[in-house]
Amino acid sequence: MYCDILVIGAGILGLSSAYHLKSQNPNKRILVIDKLSGPGQGNTAKSAGGFRNLFTSKTNYLLANSTINWFDHLQNDLNYDLKFAYTGYLYLYSKFQYSHLRKSFDKMKSKGIEFRTFEKDELRHLIPDLVTNFEGDKEAELMGLEPVEIGVLGVKCGTINTDAIARCYEAEFLKIGGEVKYNIIANRLITRPEKEFGIPGEPFIWQDVVVAGTNTNYGEINAKRTVVAAGVWSERLLDPIGFDSMIRPKTRVIFVFKDQKLERLLHLKGMNNYGFLPHTHLTNTKLYLIGDLTEKSIWLGCAEDFGRKYGLEDDPKPNEHLYSKNAYHALVKYLPCFKDVRPINMWAGQRAINRFDSIPIVTSAPGMIYVGAATGNGILKCDALGRIVAALYSDENETILYSGYNFKVSDLGIANRNVEKEKF
Amino acid sequence: MYCDILVIGAGILGLSSAYHLKSQNPNKRILVIDKLSGPGQGNTAKSAGGFRNLFTSKTNYLLANSTINWFDHLQNDLNYDLKFAYTGYLYLYSKFQYSHLRKSFDKMKSKGIEFRTFEKDELRHLIPDLVTNFEGDKEAELMGLEPVEIGVLGVKCGTINTDAIARCYEAEFLKIGGEVKYNIIANRLITRPEKEFGIPGEPFIWQDVVVAGTNTNYGEINAKRTVVAAGVWSERLLDPIGFDSMIRPKTRVIFVFKDQKLERLLHLKGMNNYGFLPHTHLTNTKLYLIGDLTEKSIWLGCAEDFGRKYGLEDDPKPNEHLYSKNAYHALVKYLPCFKDVRPINMWAGQRAINRFDSIPIVTSAPGMIYVGAATGNGILKCDALGRIVAALYSDENETILYSGYNFKVSDLGIANRNVEKEKF
Repeated sequence: MYCDILVIGAGILGLSSAYHLKSQNPNKRILVIDKLSGPGQGNTAKSAGGFRNLFTSKTNYLLANSTINWFDHLQNDLNYDLKFAYTGYLYLYSKFQYSHLRKSFDKMKSKGIEFRTFEKDELRHLIPDLVTNFEGDKEAELMGLEPVEIGVLGVKCGTINTDAIARCYEAEFLKIGGEVKYNIIANRLITRPEKEFGIPGEPFIWQDVVVAGTNTNYGEINAKRTVVAAGVWSERLLDPIGFDSMIRPKTRVIFVFKDQKLERLLHLKGMNNYGFLPHTHLTNTKLYLIGDLTEKSIWLGCAEDFGRKYGLEDDPKPNEHLYSKNAYHALVKYLPCFKDVRPINMWAGQRAINRFDSIPIVTSAPGMIYVGAATGNGILKCDALGRIVAALYSDENETILYSGYNFKVSDLGIANRNVEKEKF
Repeated sequence: MYCDILVIGAGILGLSSAYHLKSQNPNKRILVIDKLSGPGQGNTAKSAGGFRNLFTSKTNYLLANSTINWFDHLQNDLNYDLKFAYTGYLYLYSKFQYSHLRKSFDKMKSKGIEFRTFEKDELRHLIPDLVTNFEGDKEAELMGLEPVEIGVLGVKCGTINTDAIARCYEAEFLKIGGEVKYNIIANRLITRPEKEFGIPGEPFIWQDVVVAGTNTNYGEINAKRTVVAAGVWSERLLDPIGFDSMIRPKTRVIFVFKDQKLERLLHLKGMNNYGFLPHTHLTNTKLYLIGDLTEKSIWLGCAEDFGRKYGLEDDPKPNEHLYSKNAYHALVKYLPCFKDVRPINMWAGQRAINRFDSIPIVTSAPGMIYVGAATGNGILKCDALGRIVAALYSDENETILYSGYNFKVSDLGIANRNVEKEKF
């Protein structure tokens, strides 16, 4: 099989790339393949689906802010039901933690990023379930927990249904003549010498090499250009051809709760127009809670951090003990309403962590483009990244993001990388 | 067992770090462990042992230049027999290749880096074995080979015996009271919560974690600080604790030749004071040759490049076919004296490639320091890196390299990394 552009991975980054590539190159044959059976069924589906524009890094802000505008456009102008809702991101800090972040918030404010700050008394009033004082609680002290004293609520933040956004890109891509094939496993990239000599054993070590498609369980797919957008699985394709994906995969677990005791927390007033629990970070504990508007449940996520292993897993399994014998100890100190509440569901997914600068990568090598390293932010930057892939394909120096900003394509590359590191 | 500082890895970076740590902290108990049975027996031993100060990156230049000065001092002032010899680095280019590098050489010249440039006629005269014209050779044309037209010879460059330099650091370290234990395998790093709560299952997800030593085949070694200097093996220790080593391992093969036909090439006049073949790069082919002063043989190395796989191998094996059915095709076109000459020996080693910026990393996390990602340049930057490790341990902002230059420690870290990318 032959195509002009082969996109490996029908996750959010692959589909966004494919859509923007096809809209700018309507006459090219563009094929997306995925080993799973539908759009966004890998780690896209396992994501928490949060979005935010709170970043200190200009690069991150530009990518996220324009993608959020695009989501808004899809739902409110084009009537896609993406469950896109500005429910906010609430960060809860101890005095000590906040003092370290004060500069970052000042920087964000100076850029016009909108957020509200709550003092302890306000928090106590707004979130009656939250313990803001551990006085007399010897155990909390022994555990080294610090009381919440300050809250920061990001406004242009919230949640989106990741399945809906993946399907939306797929639908738009198919509408303009794109092709998608599922259940096709890209086993290894095909490399050829740039100038073929025509004797067995090529490519030789002295030849320059170009990527020319992939071998799959259904045979070879030859492509003029191959876009590797396989998330944490990218390393399985890229390591064999000596191209560094620059990421380490890390598992993130989500537990789902639905319980009478949590009703008041779920239907939290004063934070957004929905009267609903925002994406809430108990930063002291590395835990966060999300109010799921669709199912009226609360999700609990455990953020990856130093001390928790890296390693690719095809289908990571959550362990209930991570909640009941681990996260629970701290959670229940801050939110006693969780006392004896057990998760009704849970799953695990993996993020492609770039610990070098925590900014996504869009770069090329002969015959291929790599997009990834989104560090758990693939969904909330997907549209900007898709546009940058399309611009890189066309050898354009800049691309106009949906926000109207002119983004320099080489800034997300490796050779001339020019990004501001994230400090938040 | 307990020590103040545990260094994992008795390769060149571990031993240099240990030596500088001990000389600055004479009262600390410092232990180096290695899974192999002597100093520098891993990839240090398998290195080509070349050194050069030709770099466009200021960072690379500073690290290499000061380390070369240190080698010179060890051999010429302290009388260590390191087989340290300024035999030079000769880069052979086609016109086209050189035109791309012209700017880099101008930059190096402006910094005072010493090199000589040879035109085609001079090269033909100096290296009678070198073919500088493929006219009439249809095959060479079909292979896409371009004739050599320009040579650049770096002067403060040459070779050193890697075994000798590793033993020298070990000897100096032992002399001042350092301890080294071999045949000890660091299986996994020990992590503890920063504030211990004292119940089973720690560290919990909500706790901050600190590295506290390692588990080995001889039991636990507890350490206040652990220096991970395990080269390509570092990822085996660091992945499980969620710390990115930022490298990919790549195999590099060396073939050894000793043959009448190669005598003239080996005893090349006019390039250095030894009348000997310098470290010679046939850049068009990704192959390089080294005159081995000790054994009077020629080594052939195949540089890693795009298209050749990444992947950790404990004991990579060379395949003779990589020479006879691959590299040979191109080599013999440039140097027909290799016709029908077979290698008498060969080995393979691995390099820890940092494709992000190709500059080494010295960074810390609670309880640990990581030094690595030297991208095949560990030996020629070893002394500078050891000093930077020692400064990071002591929370010093700067360290004085042997060249006298004040180097900012955080420049090689991740959070505030400030390095100039290498363009050469």
